[in-house]
Amino acid sequence: MLAIGIGAGDPDHLTLQAVEALGRTDVVFVIDKGDEKDDLRALREEILRRHRPDGGYRLVEAADLPRERSGPVSADADAYRDVVVDWQDRRAALYRDLLTANLADDECGAFLVWGDPSLYDGTLRLLDGVFSRMPDPDGWRVESVPGISSVAALAAAHRLILNRVGRPVLITTGRRIEGGLPDDVDDVVVMLDGRAAFSTLPPEQSAALHVYWGAYLGTTDELLVSGPLDQVCEQIVAARDEARERKGWIMDTYLLRRNAGER
Amino acid sequence: MLAIGIGAGDPDHLTLQAVEALGRTDVVFVIDKGDEKDDLRALREEILRRHRPDGGYRLVEAADLPRERSGPVSADADAYRDVVVDWQDRRAALYRDLLTANLADDECGAFLVWGDPSLYDGTLRLLDGVFSRMPDPDGWRVESVPGISSVAALAAAHRLILNRVGRPVLITTGRRIEGGLPDDVDDVVVMLDGRAAFSTLPPEQSAALHVYWGAYLGTTDELLVSGPLDQVCEQIVAARDEARERKGWIMDTYLLRRNAGER
Ligand SMILES: C[S@@+](CC[C@H](N)C(=O)[O-])C[C@H]1O[C@@H](n2cnc3c(N)ncnc32)[C@H](O)[C@@H]1O
Ligand SMILES: C[S@@+](CC[C@H](N)C(=O)[O-])C[C@H]1O[C@@H](n2cnc3c(N)ncnc32)[C@H](O)[C@@H]1O
Repeated sequence: MLAIGIGAGDPDHLTLQAVEALGRTDVVFVIDKGDEKDDLRALREEILRRHRPDGGYRLVEAADLPRERSGPVSADADAYRDVVVDWQDRRAALYRDLLTANLADDECGAFLVWGDPSLYDGTLRLLDGVFSRMPDPDGWRVESVPGISSVAALAAAHRLILNRVGRPVLITTGRRIEGGLPDDVDDVVVMLDGRAAFSTLPPEQSAALHVYWGAYLGTTDELLVSGPLDQVCEQIVAARDEARERKGWIMDTYLLRRNAGER
Repeated sequence: MLAIGIGAGDPDHLTLQAVEALGRTDVVFVIDKGDEKDDLRALREEILRRHRPDGGYRLVEAADLPRERSGPVSADADAYRDVVVDWQDRRAALYRDLLTANLADDECGAFLVWGDPSLYDGTLRLLDGVFSRMPDPDGWRVESVPGISSVAALAAAHRLILNRVGRPVLITTGRRIEGGLPDDVDDVVVMLDGRAAFSTLPPEQSAALHVYWGAYLGTTDELLVSGPLDQVCEQIVAARDEARERKGWIMDTYLLRRNAGER
């Protein structure tokens, strides 16, 4: 079973290794997350059209198991995690059945994963859960094909080096920075931010931060804004609202950088 | 000017965007870091052979400016940074001359960057410095082409998701973890570790850590070890020593994970 990273929006993010992997795929499994993400579906279809013009594969789509909302948006990380973990368990059982029903013994299946399979994506975890529920867990193996992540795409779009010389970079979620940034790291990449967490930082933090923001990176809708956070914060909030209104969903990532003057 | 990420060792890490960028390159600039890294040179040459079989480009090599050692290995991060920054300034002047001497007005130059240009690589910073020293700084622009980083390659080789659900990942250097891991993050990717920093952690930390280690990722020399840190630490130290002895240099990256049982 393949988990193929397809990049974060640009079909040319695909690696030669991913092209090769697509070439030996018999069944493409698609997790359908609902109709709001038509662009994601479009990318997948374009990639298959370009790299499997023979059409010699089967496409198996499954409606994704809806994830129950944890009530009024909860800042409780443990409660959030429990909800996700339970949802993952039920999903694993669902996909086990899907796989056994649709994949012959000698066939190669593939999940196409947005960005890189190693960042905030559940496919590898799902497959672990699926395989452990198989009658012959050892007969199953997953191969992970790395892809260009939205983090790499963000950096490229702004021509950024994410770390300063000899210093660390933290990759985290919007939820995690809502109380403020950690003190011990000056370069923080934020993903999965539904609620503009950058606009909730204490003023003494924002005043020292530069932001490099990107939405729909790698697509024709790409939006980029950068500058001192307190100067461009409103502009980003407005751009997000406008884009979400227009497209029905938003996908954005940003780097927050303390003391941007230092190398 | 292009900064093209070529992936972390496997020629098939190259993206279609990188292949396209190579296709329109007139001059490939190579920073020669000395003879120890023959494998890196070999990868570059293979990539050019495969994707520019026409040979219609010029190769311009410059011996890299030797970086002065900061005396007896210094754990002083500021002193280390000063040395690096000064070296970067002198290098920028050198490369300005190289670029102006070798690139006609309408030509496209490219630097091939190991991994992804956004992680612990100085090329984008160098080009910033070079352009600002040009008589017409605004006439120069760099395009960064993202690549598969060693972090993505490490994760793929071990089939890892780097983050746990909703939680952060820190990317840092060996030097930075020598005193111990930070408390506020449970998943730490370590790069640039010349001195097996993982073996210097306080015992109460190592006992709770899992390590996923990879050297020469993506190459035919790839080495992988994983397990509870206190059980495999010696094995990794020995593998590093043996490999460095045999090949003359080592390039390794690893994830340290607290409480590896949790998702
Ligand atoms: C579920 S995660 C998947 C990440 C993916 N595996 C990767 O490597 O980028 C989704 C988050 O990734 C980020 N993201 C993915 N694609 C993006 C894009 N094209 N532009 C901006 N952000 C993106 C956003 O932060 C989004 O909330
Ligand atoms: C100067 S940094 C360059 C990183 C590069 N820009 C990237 O995206 O991976 C060199 C460090 O990257 C890591 N590295 C690069 N290639 C690697 C490989 N093939 N296997 C293991 N580690 C690698 C090692 O930690 C090494 O010390």
